Amino acid sequence: MIPNMSLSGERFTVVYRIQADDQIEARARAEALCLEQTVECPSALLPSGSVAEAMVGRIEDLRCSSHDACTATISFAVETIGAEFTQFLNVLFGNSSLKPGLRVESLSLPKTVSRLFKGPRFGPSGLRAITGVARRPLVCTALKPLGLPATALAEMAYRFAWGGIDLIKDDHGLADQTVAPFAERLARCAEAVARANQETGGRCLYLPNVTAPFDHVLPRARAARAAGAGGLLVAPGLVGWETLRRLAEDDSIGVNPNSGLSPYVLFGQLPRLAGADASIYPHWGGRFSFSTNDCRAIVAGARVDMGSVRPLMPAPGGGMGFDRLPDMVEVYGSDVILLIGGALQQRGPDLTANARYFREKIDTWETR
Amino acid sequence: MIPNMSLSGERFTVVYRIQADDQIEARARAEALCLEQTVECPSALLPSGSVAEAMVGRIEDLRCSSHDACTATISFAVETIGAEFTQFLNVLFGNSSLKPGLRVESLSLPKTVSRLFKGPRFGPSGLRAITGVARRPLVCTALKPLGLPATALAEMAYRFAWGGIDLIKDDHGLADQTVAPFAERLARCAEAVARANQETGGRCLYLPNVTAPFDHVLPRARAARAAGAGGLLVAPGLVGWETLRRLAEDDSIGVNPNSGLSPYVLFGQLPRLAGADASIYPHWGGRFSFSTNDCRAIVAGARVDMGSVRPLMPAPGGGMGFDRLPDMVEVYGSDVILLIGGALQQRGPDLTANARYFREKIDTWETR
Repeated sequence: MIPNMSLSGERFTVVYRIQADDQIEARARAEALCLEQTVECPSALLPSGSVAEAMVGRIEDLRCSSHDACTATISFAVETIGAEFTQFLNVLFGNSSLKPGLRVESLSLPKTVSRLFKGPRFGPSGLRAITGVARRPLVCTALKPLGLPATALAEMAYRFAWGGIDLIKDDHGLADQTVAPFAERLARCAEAVARANQETGGRCLYLPNVTAPFDHVLPRARAARAAGAGGLLVAPGLVGWETLRRLAEDDSIGVNPNSGLSPYVLFGQLPRLAGADASIYPHWGGRFSFSTNDCRAIVAGARVDMGSVRPLMPAPGGGMGFDRLPDMVEVYGSDVILLIGGALQQRGPDLTANARYFREKIDTWETR
Repeated sequence: MIPNMSLSGERFTVVYRIQADDQIEARARAEALCLEQTVECPSALLPSGSVAEAMVGRIEDLRCSSHDACTATISFAVETIGAEFTQFLNVLFGNSSLKPGLRVESLSLPKTVSRLFKGPRFGPSGLRAITGVARRPLVCTALKPLGLPATALAEMAYRFAWGGIDLIKDDHGLADQTVAPFAERLARCAEAVARANQETGGRCLYLPNVTAPFDHVLPRARAARAAGAGGLLVAPGLVGWETLRRLAEDDSIGVNPNSGLSPYVLFGQLPRLAGADASIYPHWGGRFSFSTNDCRAIVAGARVDMGSVRPLMPAPGGGMGFDRLPDMVEVYGSDVILLIGGALQQRGPDLTANARYFREKIDTWETR
């Protein structure tokens, strides 16, 4: 009943942080994870030498540094995932995500696996080529608030583009509400940014939000391309990581510390595998609770060698003001997209002047 | 620049649990949430009387019972979501999901909103009609482990169906791996279950796992229907809740205690809105850390009145053995799908006898 199909021997590894009182408990939790993430049954049900037995995760390393935090490096046969991102996510952190005190810290993939995923289409160098920004950080803002009509959002986009913003994204809460329906917003904002570019010689990109129902994601993305939008915004937590991957591969288109996915994986490695060119997340000291170390980890995950998968551009934001720019440039260097939203509107009524002020702060940095 | 579009006045409400030292801190956190989940900008940017201002969430009630757990009932204008499930999820728990110590406890939707979502197509009474099970709990098991070839999985399904299991699902780790590709597994397992049904006069359903890449989800679901599978298994955490919703509406087809979504919402209300007929989750005392209260909350969320949205069947599992059946029936009553996986294989080599044993335990309960 159970054949001896031979496996390739290729494995990918995941580092898990495991809360445990001691090494013995940590090993028991790691062993349970090896089963839970693959065969989901007791090892007694797995005949010796069977394919099923070979599918079980393997503990490659286990170490406990402090009193309750251990680190297990676990490898999985590439055959466990087939060739699908959804099943890759499942092996990475499926059932075990329901257990407290387990966190995915990092991934390491052989070429067999990283080649399954195209990753970012452009990467930092591609984004620089498209926007024409040679060395400085890219500057970004969001069209908001929800409640403005499309005409007002387009006017706002026009002024920001005139002021020298590189990337203007929809706030991700702008979906297809009656007050500013997607189609009208796309048409007006794309036109406004194109007009500003023509007048200034700039290369600002408008990134409409295509976070949408299943059947609308690809059509909206294609409409965005047709309207001349230079990229897309999508919220993988809302549409699913697989939908982000599907969008990124389409050539016709433009935290709790002990559980979950580490910032390194969630905002660095995972969006890269799914093909995002940039990953938006909260910089420390804003409205959210991310730490400096979280942010440094995201940058590391965004840049670590992942074979054929390009790096991505970190896009820190989440309540940032101009006073935070020196600190952000210090942390991220120049391969970064600096996102200022509300503060760019609060500075004063002249949005073009505000955007220019933002750009000047960065241009000054460039020539230091 | 900002018109005075009038809103309908209809609102939906969400109860959030908020960690805070006192009522003052809780109110500040609730006020931040009202902005964060909608306009994502400081209230100073919202002109008085504007649509944007009307989009901001409103605190309807705030109470602190113990030293650090407060409960805020917050209402949102239905206009914040348009008509899309993705944006509904975003208003429910988008940005704020990044903040620690916030949890969605429950939802309450006016008909305007619940009508946007079809909900479960069958509900408990529909599932009973399809399976021909009048009053007793439904019994369910999983084909596993990953690593078995399709022929072995089909043989297993055949024996389980002979033994009287009502629902036989793929383990959700069975995707499209070489060892048992989806198409072959579907064909063989559906045939095996149909053959057993013909021989026994039973009405067992086979539920193949259609958790898959974006472009394969709907084709696999249609193939499942064509092959005679009686339903589908899908993991919304992997494909996205919106993909589950899309599957369910297609007529051509068949935890941390202080953060996140409560079990009441995550396994009860949310899968209902997305259209699942049954929701699989870990019963307490198994391999996972769910409490009795979590499980009772799931049942409540699965059955609470949600207007036109049918109830769903809870399907507790996750390491359950036969010894747990009395307790499960006690907790859930008869409108439940009882899921036993590994233990149904561990009892002995005769899978038909094991399945029959499972059914007898439940049939006995029925005639008490």
